[in-house]
Parts: sequence; C-alpha cells; structure tokens
Amino acid sequence: MPPINVAVIGSGFMGAAHVDALRRVPNVAVVAIASADRPRAQEIAGQFGIPHVLDDWHDLLGRADVHAVHNCTPNNLHFEVNKALLGAGKHVLSEKPLTMTSAESSELVRLARDAGVATAINFNYRGYPLVQQARGMVQRGELGDLFVVHGHYLQDWLLYDTDYNWRLESAVSGKSRAIADIGSHWCDLVQFVTGRKITRVFAHLFRAHETRKKPTQEVETYKGKELGAPHEYDEVPIDTEDGGFVLAELEGGLRGSLVVSQVSAGRKNRQWIEVDGSKSALSWNQEEPNTLWIGYRDKPNETLIKDPSLMDANARGYAHYPGGHPEGYPDGPRNLFRNLYRYIAAGKKPGVDAADFPTFEDGHAEVVIVDAVLASHEQQRWVDVNH
Amino acid sequence: MPPINVAVIGSGFMGAAHVDALRRVPNVAVVAIASADRPRAQEIAGQFGIPHVLDDWHDLLGRADVHAVHNCTPNNLHFEVNKALLGAGKHVLSEKPLTMTSAESSELVRLARDAGVATAINFNYRGYPLVQQARGMVQRGELGDLFVVHGHYLQDWLLYDTDYNWRLESAVSGKSRAIADIGSHWCDLVQFVTGRKITRVFAHLFRAHETRKKPTQEVETYKGKELGAPHEYDEVPIDTEDGGFVLAELEGGLRGSLVVSQVSAGRKNRQWIEVDGSKSALSWNQEEPNTLWIGYRDKPNETLIKDPSLMDANARGYAHYPGGHPEGYPDGPRNLFRNLYRYIAAGKKPGVDAADFPTFEDGHAEVVIVDAVLASHEQQRWVDVNH
Amino acid sequence: MPPINVAVIGSGFMGAAHVDALRRVPNVAVVAIASADRPRAQEIAGQFGIPHVLDDWHDLLGRADVHAVHNCTPNNLHFEVNKALLGAGKHVLSEKPLTMTSAESSELVRLARDAGVATAINFNYRGYPLVQQARGMVQRGELGDLFVVHGHYLQDWLLYDTDYNWRLESAVSGKSRAIADIGSHWCDLVQFVTGRKITRVFAHLFRAHETRKKPTQEVETYKGKELGAPHEYDEVPIDTEDGGFVLAELEGGLRGSLVVSQVSAGRKNRQWIEVDGSKSALSWNQEEPNTLWIGYRDKPNETLIKDPSLMDANARGYAHYPGGHPEGYPDGPRNLFRNLYRYIAAGKKPGVDAADFPTFEDGHAEVVIVDAVLASHEQQRWVDVNH
Amino acid sequence: MPPINVAVIGSGFMGAAHVDALRRVPNVAVVAIASADRPRAQEIAGQFGIPHVLDDWHDLLGRADVHAVHNCTPNNLHFEVNKALLGAGKHVLSEKPLTMTSAESSELVRLARDAGVATAINFNYRGYPLVQQARGMVQRGELGDLFVVHGHYLQDWLLYDTDYNWRLESAVSGKSRAIADIGSHWCDLVQFVTGRKITRVFAHLFRAHETRKKPTQEVETYKGKELGAPHEYDEVPIDTEDGGFVLAELEGGLRGSLVVSQVSAGRKNRQWIEVDGSKSALSWNQEEPNTLWIGYRDKPNETLIKDPSLMDANARGYAHYPGGHPEGYPDGPRNLFRNLYRYIAAGKKPGVDAADFPTFEDGHAEVVIVDAVLASHEQQRWVDVNH
Repeated sequence: MPPINVAVIGSGFMGAAHVDALRRVPNVAVVAIASADRPRAQEIAGQFGIPHVLDDWHDLLGRADVHAVHNCTPNNLHFEVNKALLGAGKHVLSEKPLTMTSAESSELVRLARDAGVATAINFNYRGYPLVQQARGMVQRGELGDLFVVHGHYLQDWLLYDTDYNWRLESAVSGKSRAIADIGSHWCDLVQFVTGRKITRVFAHLFRAHETRKKPTQEVETYKGKELGAPHEYDEVPIDTEDGGFVLAELEGGLRGSLVVSQVSAGRKNRQWIEVDGSKSALSWNQEEPNTLWIGYRDKPNETLIKDPSLMDANARGYAHYPGGHPEGYPDGPRNLFRNLYRYIAAGKKPGVDAADFPTFEDGHAEVVIVDAVLASHEQQRWVDVNH
Repeated sequence: MPPINVAVIGSGFMGAAHVDALRRVPNVAVVAIASADRPRAQEIAGQFGIPHVLDDWHDLLGRADVHAVHNCTPNNLHFEVNKALLGAGKHVLSEKPLTMTSAESSELVRLARDAGVATAINFNYRGYPLVQQARGMVQRGELGDLFVVHGHYLQDWLLYDTDYNWRLESAVSGKSRAIADIGSHWCDLVQFVTGRKITRVFAHLFRAHETRKKPTQEVETYKGKELGAPHEYDEVPIDTEDGGFVLAELEGGLRGSLVVSQVSAGRKNRQWIEVDGSKSALSWNQEEPNTLWIGYRDKPNETLIKDPSLMDANARGYAHYPGGHPEGYPDGPRNLFRNLYRYIAAGKKPGVDAADFPTFEDGHAEVVIVDAVLASHEQQRWVDVNH
Repeated sequence: MPPINVAVIGSGFMGAAHVDALRRVPNVAVVAIASADRPRAQEIAGQFGIPHVLDDWHDLLGRADVHAVHNCTPNNLHFEVNKALLGAGKHVLSEKPLTMTSAESSELVRLARDAGVATAINFNYRGYPLVQQARGMVQRGELGDLFVVHGHYLQDWLLYDTDYNWRLESAVSGKSRAIADIGSHWCDLVQFVTGRKITRVFAHLFRAHETRKKPTQEVETYKGKELGAPHEYDEVPIDTEDGGFVLAELEGGLRGSLVVSQVSAGRKNRQWIEVDGSKSALSWNQEEPNTLWIGYRDKPNETLIKDPSLMDANARGYAHYPGGHPEGYPDGPRNLFRNLYRYIAAGKKPGVDAADFPTFEDGHAEVVIVDAVLASHEQQRWVDVNH
Repeated sequence: MPPINVAVIGSGFMGAAHVDALRRVPNVAVVAIASADRPRAQEIAGQFGIPHVLDDWHDLLGRADVHAVHNCTPNNLHFEVNKALLGAGKHVLSEKPLTMTSAESSELVRLARDAGVATAINFNYRGYPLVQQARGMVQRGELGDLFVVHGHYLQDWLLYDTDYNWRLESAVSGKSRAIADIGSHWCDLVQFVTGRKITRVFAHLFRAHETRKKPTQEVETYKGKELGAPHEYDEVPIDTEDGGFVLAELEGGLRGSLVVSQVSAGRKNRQWIEVDGSKSALSWNQEEPNTLWIGYRDKPNETLIKDPSLMDANARGYAHYPGGHPEGYPDGPRNLFRNLYRYIAAGKKPGVDAADFPTFEDGHAEVVIVDAVLASHEQQRWVDVNH
C-alpha cells in the first residue's frame, strides 16, 4: 500500500513537532513543508528527506501528490488556510484554535461536511494512554454518577512583564489568550473524559500585567524563558487575560471548576483534572502523565501506571512501551496522527464512521466555549454555550 | 506560677481532642469537664486526673477556680454558651463556627471587647509550622505581588447517601454545611497566609444527595465510615450543600478560587492552597503538612521541610521536633492553645496586645463570609462580604 | 482506679519528649523527674505539674510511690540505670540502645525475667498506625512468600565536619554510631514487620570525616543545624561510622539490604522500608508516615491512607484521628507507652502474657545485631548474629 | 549532505524501537532491516518506507550503501554479529550486553580500535536530559566530595513462576540475568553520572523461583504480563538470578550500594539513583524522569524540572520540549543515536575525538563488572573488577 502523502505548513516549533510525530506514524510520508521562513524549512526538509519545500502554502492546493495537510500557522491564519485546504479536497489537521471566531469555525464544520474529507484538530492531550483509560472508566460506569469535575491549567512562561510572544497580541492570537490557548485544552479534556458537553459557563478573568515589554526581536513561544529579559523593547498595552476562573455546567447536571493561569511561578505546564463520582474518583496531571490516581471511599486509593497489562483494550493501543517506560508529550500527537491516517487509509467516511481523534467539530466546540467565557466575564453572569 | 485552670464543655470527639491538646500545654490544668454524657465525661476525667465532672455547663459560670473554658458543644449551642461564658468573665475558646448567624457573632465580638477577656476560635490549621512559615514568606514579600490564590478542600466521609451525622441537619449545624464546616477553614487559611480579607464572593453550591438515610442510632462525625451503611434508617430530605465553588476577591485586588466537596472519593481531608505571586508561588496540602512547595520561574522549585533549622524564627516556635520528624493534626491545636495561654499568663490585653491565635473577630469574619456565600448562591451574583 | 506513677530520668530533648507523650496516656501520672540539670528539670516540672524534682536518679529507687521509670540518660549510663531500676522492682522503659555491650543487655534480660516487672525499649517507630498495619498484612499472608526486604535510613544532621554532638564520642555513645543510632531502628522495624529475625549480616561501613570540629560548648542532638558552625572548637579524631551498608539474612531465607547514612544532604530522617513478596509488596517512609504503598503485579498499586475505616482492627487502635488528619512522630511513643501501661494496669505477666510493645528482649536483639555488624565490617565476611 | 544509511538487525520489540528512534534523527535514512522473521520485517519496512528487507544479516556485510548497523539480536549473537560488522568496516551500534564474556568484549574493543569505525552501545538511560544534567552537576563540583551512591533497579515482570522469556535461559541470555539485564544499566548510570569507575564489588544474589513454567509458545520480553499464565508449559530449572545486592567501591574512595530485583510487585521499571556529596545530593528515578531531586542541608531541597531554561547548556540539548512537556523513554535512544550520527557526520575519529555517547569500551566495562559480580557471589568476598 502506498503511503499517504502529507504536507506541513509552518516551520516553527509546532511545525517541527508535527514532522517529528509524522515520521513515527506508519504508512505516512511527509512530502512537503511550506513556510515563509525558507531557510528553516529547508533545514528541516534536509534533515528528514522531505522532497519539497514551498514558500507559499497556496502552492499545495493544486498538488495531487499531497493528500493531507497539517496547518501549523499562527492563529489568525487558521481559518483562511483551513478553508482553502478543504476547498482543495485535502484532508486537514489544524492546530488549535480552529479559527478566531465561531462564525468561522461553524463555517469550516459545514465546509468539511460538504468536502467529505477527514478533519482533525490537535487536542493532543487526548493522545495520552491514561487519558484514554480515564474516558473508558467513565464510559463503563466505574465512577458511578458524576458529581463534580475540577482542576487547573497553570504555566509560568508569561510570569514577568518582560515575557513577550505573538500569543500576547490579540490581533494575531485572538481576543482570549490564556483561556483559548490552554484553558481550551482543559475543557476538551473534561468533555472527552466525561463524554459530556459544557453547556453554561461563569467566568472571571484577570490580567496580571496591564502592559508588557515587547522586545524588538521576535521570540518563539516558551523560548523567552531561556533568553531572559530583553534589552530593547517597547512598552505595549495588553488586552488579553493572563488567567481566570471558569465555572461550568455540563450535560447531565455535572458541575465543573477550572483555574487557568500563565503567571503561576514554578508551574510549567500543569494541566490537572479530577473527576469525582458516586463510586470512585480519578485524577490526572499532564506533568506526570504515566500515572492515574483513582480514589475510593471503602478501600485504598490506587495509582494506575501506564502499563499495557493493566489498561483496557482501547487505551492499551496508545501505549507503545511496557509499564515503567514513561511516554511523554511527543507521543500524544503521534497517537492522534496515527488514528487519523489509519482512519483515512481504511477509507472511513466522516459523518458516517466514528472518528477516534478530535475533529473540526471538536474544534468548533472550543471556539463557542471561549466565546461564552468572554461574554460571561464581560457580563459577570452565567452564559449558555452556543453549540 | 500557678497554672491557668481550664474547663472543657463537651465529651465527644472534639472535647476529648481538646483535653489531649491541653495536657501538652505548659502551665495549664484541666480542672473540669462538663457534658450531658456523664459516663463518657467521667471516663475522660478518670483517665487524665480531671477533678470535676459536671452535668450542666451552667455550673461552670460561677466557679472562681475555672479561668478559661473551651466550648465544644454542637453548633447550635455555640452562641448561647459563648455569651454566657463571656458574661461570667471567663476566657473562652470556642469551636467553630462561632455562631449560626452574623448577628450573633457580631454581638459576641462586642461582648468580648467589653468583657476584656481573651477569646479564641479553633482555626486549628493556623497551628501548623509551615502555615506560619507561609504567612511569614508573604509578609516579607518573598512572593512579590500576589496575583491569584486557589485551592480546594475535599473529603469523602459523606460520599454515600447512607452517610449521616448531625452536621447534615441545618437546625443543629446551620444553613451551610460544606462551606461552613470546611470551606471556612480554607477561607481563614487564605486570609491568614495572605494577610488579606475576602471582600466579595461568587458562589455556586451543589448537593449530590437530595435525601439521605438517617440511621435510628446517632453517629459521631467521621465515624460512619467505620460503621458502614445503617440497617435501620429514615429517608430524610437534605437542605445543606455537599460542596460548591467559591470565587473570591480579596483586599488589594487579589482573586481566589475554592472548590469544596464532601463527596470526593479517596480525598479524606485534602485542604490545599496555592498562592501565586510575581516572584514565587507557594503550595501547601494539609494531608502532607510537613512540606511546603515553593515555585520559581528562574530556578528549581523548592520543597521546604518542617525543619527548625530551615524555618524563620516565628515558625520555628511551632515545630517541636527536628526535620524529618513529622508533626501532625494534633499538634496544631496544641500550638494555638499554647499561644492563647501564654498570652493570658503574660497579662496581655485583648484589643491592645496583638493576639498570635485566632480570636472571636476571626470567628465573626467567617460567619459573614458564609452569609455572603449563601446569598451569592441564591442570587447567582457577586455579593459583598459584610465585615 | 489510681494512676500508675511514672518518673522520668533525664531532662534533655528525649526526657521532655517522654513527658509530653506520657501526659497523653490514660491512667498515668508523671510524678517525678530526675536530672543533673536541675533548672531544666524544674522548668519542665513546673510547666506540667510534676510534684518531685530529683538531682540524683538513685533517689527514685527507694520510693514506693514511683511504679515505673523512663530511662532517658546518655547511652553509657543505660546499663547501670536499667539494672538498678530492675533491682528496685520498678517497671522500666529504657531509651535505646538498651546497653553498650551484649553481655550487659543479656544480663538485663535475665534480671528483668527474675524481677517480673514490665520492661520496654523505645523502638518508637512501631507505634505508627501504618507500621502496625504492615505487620498485620504480612502476618495474614497478604504479601505471600517474602522474597526480599530493602531500604535505607538517611539523615543529614552530621553532614559537615563542623557538626558535633556527644553521639560522636564512642566512650559515651558506643563503638557504633550510625548503625546503632538509626540503623538499629530499621532492623527492628524489619524484624517487627516481617516477624523474622536477622540471623546473619555482611557489613561495610564508612566514615566521611576522619576528624570533626568539636565545639567548646555542648550541643544537643540535632540542634547543631540551627546553631551553625561553631566559632571555638577542637579538631578531634572520630572513631565511629557516618554510615554503611548492611546485607542481612533473616529467618526463612529472606534477604535484606540496608543503607545507612548521617551525611546525606537533604534527607532529614528518611527511614524507608520495602518488603517484596510473591503476591504483593509494601513500602513505607517514616517522613510520610500516613500513607502505605502496596504494590501489585496484576492490578493498580495502592496507597493506603492512615484511615481507621480502611485499616485492620489492631492497627486502627493506633490511629486517634480520621483519615486525612495526619498523625506524626510524637504519636508513636504515645501509643507504645499506652500499650505498656495498659499491660501493667491489666496485671499482665511478662514472660507469660504477650507484650504489644518492644521489650528488653527486643533491645538485646539489637545490641547483638550491632555487634555482628561491627565484627563483619572488621572481618569483611558474613557474621552470624548471636541471638 | 546525503544521509547516513543505517540498517537494523532484528525485528522484535527492540528492533522496532530502534527504527522508531532512528526516524527522528536528522540526516539518517533507515535503508534495510534484516530479520529471521521476514513477515514482521516486511511489515515494519512497509510502514516506514524501508527499501530493503533481508533474511540474513550477513548480506549486509558487503553492501556499500549501508554505512552503519544496529545490532538488535539476542544476547548470544551479539559477539558474532558485532565482530562481523566491524570486520566489514561498518559503524556499529550494539544492544547490550556487548557480548556474553569479557574475552569477547575485550576482543571487540580491540577490533573496533583497529577498524577505526564508530561504535556505540545502547545504554539508553544516558539519553535522558536530567541524567546529563546530573553528570554536569557532579563534574562542576556542585555536590562537593562524593560520599556515597546508592539505589535500586526493580521490576515485576518476572514475579510469578509462570513468567517466562528467553532472557531466563542462560544459554541464550548469559550466566547473569537480573544483574546483566538491568543492574548493568544502573552501574553504567552511576559511572556516567559520577565519572568514576567501579573497581571492586561484593555481591549477594538470589533466586525467587528455582523452576519456572516455560510456555510451549515463545513470549516477547515484558509481554507475558499481558498474556497471563500459560496453559501449556514445561517446568524447567532456572540457573540465573532474580535479583541481588551489589556493594561497590568506585574510584576515589566512593562507595555504592545497589539492590536489583525482577520480582518486586508493583515496581515496573524503577531504576533509582542517589548520589550524596559533601555539599548537596541528587536523586533521580527513571519512572519519573522529568524531575531531578537536589538535597541540601542548609536550604530547602529542590526539584529541578526538565526545563531547557533551567538546565545547563549541554543537558539542554537533550530536551526537545519546554518545561512541563514530559519526555520519556523513547526520547533517550533518539538522543544517543543523534549524537552517534552527528559524530560520524562530523568526521570525528574514535580514539581521538571524545564520544558523547556510550561506546564499546563502555560495553566492555559492563561485562567485566558482571563477571566480578558473579565471581563475588560465588566466593562471597570482594572481587576486583578487571578493567
């Protein structure tokens, strides 16, 4: 069977990460990389034997030898690129957020349905084996009725007012930052694990720094920490949130609470979730992804290790190594990409055959949640999510 | 110097715990125990050489040989007993909540001021060495500006609808349960550690069980877990919350988020707090009280062990053993009681000399916070705390 | 029932700790404290209403109103004092080591048998609820056949060559230091939990500092860390070990490995044990004493919390608070002292009625193990323990 | 620059893992896979576009288009294959152990020197970022003088006597099992981190099961746990160890202690190391590889997260993602393979230019340590390592 040919748009941190994950997926060939930064794109292409380097992603649209495209552009290009790719009949995997407005994301969902191609969005944390295990436990009723879900997503890479990155600019990144960038992962995780949609939210956001020092040189996401405070900068106003609290109601009367912060010293990427049910509870922390805590009232609590021999049949398929051999962040996208290309290779039909990866519909669901969060914060009242 | 003579009202779990802690406090003699359960009171008295056992706490009022009284009665008696003790000129240490309404707690604060006696309320978690250390760190500015405070207080002893105890009855325990019983500890802890008052709240409470099975036999707090589900019971409606979310604003623009639950399987008494500042962050979990996490952006995170050689001068006074020798829950009240009786022995004046223990004013502060939480939940809007 | 009258010899750190624990034991009265440091003894006596203060412990021997004595003298006095107390017909609780030679410890065991009094030695770590639970689990066969036991006991209070204390002087403290002081606790713990005696050892000891700086002022155990390096000192040679490795064979073919160190930076009092059996394994760390790890091959590992509702009937009696209310180091001796005085009050007969506390026989067992360790280290071969 | 062409011998678990890692290494092309299991080899080749599948690894020897070969054969073939590859002038990366005897490993070291090719052995744990960081800390003197190193390597995949695999057969796997398979990793880790060789050992090995139930069907390493106990088997005697204790002396007077076990329930792959020095200590656990514990006497202990902004310049090169984005077991070999091929691409000369990956000399060092361990166990005395 010939491989599925994939192109990647973007050669930044995420672009390179996609190439890395794709190299590990069976029956896939990375055949092109498109980027405005040609030298960097050529470097990656050279390292991994990628035959084509393009300056302009539009040139991918007409190529019959490209079957699927990964969209790793900045947020403000997501809609335009995704739309064009769908129009060209490509399978599309988009970085999140799917778009910057719900009108756009809604349109993409419709276009994708019409195009009949497979779509995916990189809610990569679903790709962890123990996240799959957690979802299975809830589905099988092992937690009983669900009472409450709570957690947080904490980072420190934007702690200081000398931290700067394009993600701080609403024109490029969107009206919401902390919620859209990381809170959205948590919301997707909760919806995925519990199998229930968030229907209403109450939000209270905050900004630690009203202005920040924008360096005259561009800084890659997360990289500012290594570089230290800039010497030359402009003091610029900030209009997106550094964090916030989101209370949520989910289907079936479940309630949730989320704390988001990008200014929590010492917390690097601490996405933590706890689901409390009438029989047991579960807790998972992305920074220690190889253990799943299971709480009981009548017997000792458990720590389930990512060990294929201890996991259910579905989750086992996401673990590539025996127990005690930790798998990490890079292995999540690898699993989701594998699922996507396995789905495509099997000739499955979007809308007909269930997808075992997050799709544009999941991407749209996040955009409308973020909309509701922003509206609630502005109005300081509960706001329905417009699914 | 002759000891300060102390009486304890109540012979239940808390009454016995108070006797245990008082036996460890220098220059204090437990001289009386008053209880409606005379056999139990006599048992305790016999075990610890307490000379007087009284059926009726009123009999303490006129005894000149009783200088201070610990009020360990059920919540609905707190006001009456505290008021009478103040009227009799006794120093009073009350179990929490101080009263069932803010009108009452306000009156007690006024009466205490007039009486000139020392008052205390058992916010026992302040007695942990590392809680004192945390407060000192904030006071000294080691965290910088405070951005956000968050945490939770989770238990599982009321998980099942077969769990029952007088604390579930609003007539005895008050209109709020989970918030008043445990959420109040967290609020006090946050206010103590940050040195800032909670000024506004938004609350969303929940009840996991609308009815519960009330056993025909009375069950001590926490004891139901050992006894198992009752065989004979009445199905009774429940009108207090099993948990809830509280968002808060504190003085100086600090924001907070609290999750409270008494139905979280596997969580026994998990009171956890994190304070995130512009320089560093701290995190403390009551279930592992001998370590304090300190988070940094620019250097490795730290774990401070309860080790006198590593703590500041004030906090060191709360640690009785070297590092690596864990101290626990019973050592907190012991420390607070020591502070109270040291204050009294030194002839210090309430209202003039600062108290190094929580007073009736702190007790009143909690009652008004709970009032605001209940009002906010009912109205689903932000409500000011009526300090 | 009148209380059992207890005297304590010693007013240092351990003497005060014994008084603290005894105050919490039912039906016991601390009636005397004997110490060469009269001011300190009087201070303690005044604080806790102890009627008699004696300069010379010999004066306790003839007092009919003293039923039991706690021997908290330095190691080199243990034999003499214990022997005299037995001769006077007192019940005796000795600090460890029981004596400085096995000839002496053997003699004490014989004398105790003749005297018919109750004897105890303060292997305080047996008093932790989860240590009792661990022993019960092994006894009930929950671990299956035992394959191997391993662990360590690590401290850092003697890390620097400026750390000094009488325990470094073999004339006062004995020929072995790290093994006798802390390794002995681990050996007792292993023997207690597994129910098997150590029969042979291979030891390899080490000394990090051949000389140390002895301050001209005496320093209490553990206290040097707070005081810092001394300004005035004598450089003195050290002839006891800073740590070592002990391999052991136990009854029934069980093998063990122990690492001991008093020079491990950051480890305060880390006594850790793991027992690996054919069905499951258990692991316990004294610095986090409220959780017991249970390892499984075929199902998730467990963390058993010190929760009376989750523990067996015996262990439950060592827990005074519900799950999630941590108990600590001070609660261990309290439990053992309770057991001792409950035994005495019940009129039980040593040698006839089983003791639920460590006795002089257990103290003797440790002395002969330390003898074997020293002999093995010297000869670098396996040496039988002369039980 | 054309890529370096690599072939992999072996299509089992390790063969596939090597392909996975190689796909992520820049400037490398996997061009051939040789295996006796042709269907499996073809499956892998098909999935990842590997052009050549060979039944017989000898056919690689004459191919000029194969520059380097990864030897993932069973232990008893390592010598023969490695020797032939060296003879053919290929760069060789061998799975461990390098050979089954020290005569063979010594010969390979000599042959490699003569051949002038690059050699490597897969001590994959060196590839973890925080292992590199630990080594750097020791090298820079941050720990001061080293006093003691200790730790363990514990697994449970051979707990039951129904667990079976070719690694249990000394004819295929070698005279030592637990020590050679996993203890050797720990020894290499200690030598790598401390920069000191193990010079003498005292060993005491054990066997939990004298016989095991060998299934009539072959079982992949680690896979038995998923399959459960076999239905059809032969009871066979076992002549290799299930675990053991190794005491060690290292260069410069450092002492070490290691506990190895493949029968420790609940421990999946717990390789743990602690290095205690005169200034600080460090501790690292392979199952939680993204944190490094650093112990101090005079200040709080630290937890260093695998965060490029917190690590030294060398270690940072082993981290591909920001702090809080866990990297795992698959990322270690990827890093080592990258180093190897970067070395080759740069035209560096073995024996002249320092290698930043483990070489056949390191492989030989392990074989002689295992020899000494076996001799010591047999003789129950200290045995010098014949470096």
